[in-house]
Amino acid sequence: MGDMGDIYVHGYHSRENERLRDQAGTLVDLLHADTAYPGGSTVLEAGCGVAAQTVTLAQRSPGAHFTSVDVSADSLAEAKRRTDRAGLTNVTFQHADIFALPFDAASFDHVFVCFVLEHLARPVEALVILNRLLRPGGSITVIEGDHGSTYFYPDSPAAQTAIQCQVELQRKAGGNALIGRQLYPLLVAAGFDAVRVSPRMVYVDASRPDLVDGFTRKTFTAMIAGVREPALAAGLIAPETFDAGVRDLHRTTAADGVFCYTFFKGVGEQKRRA
Amino acid sequence: MGDMGDIYVHGYHSRENERLRDQAGTLVDLLHADTAYPGGSTVLEAGCGVAAQTVTLAQRSPGAHFTSVDVSADSLAEAKRRTDRAGLTNVTFQHADIFALPFDAASFDHVFVCFVLEHLARPVEALVILNRLLRPGGSITVIEGDHGSTYFYPDSPAAQTAIQCQVELQRKAGGNALIGRQLYPLLVAAGFDAVRVSPRMVYVDASRPDLVDGFTRKTFTAMIAGVREPALAAGLIAPETFDAGVRDLHRTTAADGVFCYTFFKGVGEQKRRA
Repeated sequence: MGDMGDIYVHGYHSRENERLRDQAGTLVDLLHADTAYPGGSTVLEAGCGVAAQTVTLAQRSPGAHFTSVDVSADSLAEAKRRTDRAGLTNVTFQHADIFALPFDAASFDHVFVCFVLEHLARPVEALVILNRLLRPGGSITVIEGDHGSTYFYPDSPAAQTAIQCQVELQRKAGGNALIGRQLYPLLVAAGFDAVRVSPRMVYVDASRPDLVDGFTRKTFTAMIAGVREPALAAGLIAPETFDAGVRDLHRTTAADGVFCYTFFKGVGEQKRRA
Repeated sequence: MGDMGDIYVHGYHSRENERLRDQAGTLVDLLHADTAYPGGSTVLEAGCGVAAQTVTLAQRSPGAHFTSVDVSADSLAEAKRRTDRAGLTNVTFQHADIFALPFDAASFDHVFVCFVLEHLARPVEALVILNRLLRPGGSITVIEGDHGSTYFYPDSPAAQTAIQCQVELQRKAGGNALIGRQLYPLLVAAGFDAVRVSPRMVYVDASRPDLVDGFTRKTFTAMIAGVREPALAAGLIAPETFDAGVRDLHRTTAADGVFCYTFFKGVGEQKRRA
């Protein structure tokens, strides 16, 4: 699943970068409106990718300092360009793997993780590591999508099958495209306190043209269209079914179409050590 | 599909009545918090069933007068008992079919329809009829569920298949258990103006014990368990698969389980006649 990894996991690919940028642009309020960190606090962003979320986070909490890490040096280079372009001075980037983070225990006031756990074979282990890096009483915020939350009108078995290819490819790459619904048990299993999860549903009909274009077309359908080659190479689907599925996803952007997708946002607190 | 009709469509069955009551009790704010009618206005509730929503509606708009109709005389008798018990004096019940309503055009300021379109083979036709009964500038409010919005953790193919039985039985009875996602195109097709649809997602994890019991267990899982006999009689599923599916739905009420379901609420305005 190297191709899938290159395209989807780390955001190397320029088309993927564009997709993530579009996504952050149209979904920013839905996902981030209730996240703000106090002045003087330190925040670890684990898995910042190309800084699709970092710019929003750092702008919304100008007095906080962000340490944003990613496993991909290429993504970090692009991330740095983007935060520089945005004139941000409260972000430090660092090249690191989430399973081997070069920080002492209790180094951060808060941790932020967005669209990262879906790619990890051992998400609870990652959360336990992040938990350890938090100061007593610190918070973690996790945002993940869930492809199983996708439905639309007109319904289409071909489109569902094409989406299932993405789920299966991510599974084969060791990830989980259905992880959004699991945030509550994952955060509890990792030892966080006061866990609260809230769904962030993207509902799109013709009365919301920005979402029709920015989400249904340029984010979700573009993402599915982007796995055509690995899906065919893996023998998961016939090319005509895949293409019909992508056409049917575009069909949901017509005047009588509807598209639904749900992200999940979870917040937990580091248990105060006795 | 007579059994299905008796149990699910009109709420004759006492277990179904109990389910609808539980549903209204736990979901009342999610579904109704933003519905209130001004004093002196007249509201047609089309398809009131056993008044599961009527009591809430009439209590929230004490100055409005409700005319609540249903095709089932038995349901209406129970509905009357319930509104009497609640001490409501602003509701009049009338026995009528939604496709043959005994009212003049432009008789009402507002129309309210909840969990009704899902049972109709011609939902747009019903909406056109209701549109005609509205005064110029009047509003319609429609609430429907969508069984295709159901997903949960742990996931279970058997549970998905059991849910699909309910969808298929409702389809065979002429209804559509996936109608929630269609509210926007249906209201537009029926000629309403300024149509706005919003999803009302029920997200349930162990931190919300009232919803675990009131929604996952006593509303949704009870509804699926209730179609066992017609599903088996129709040859839609093997008994052991159905029973495993219901067990797996109960499994989602454990401490690490999660359950998601979405209702849709649509509001439209009667086009002001020139």
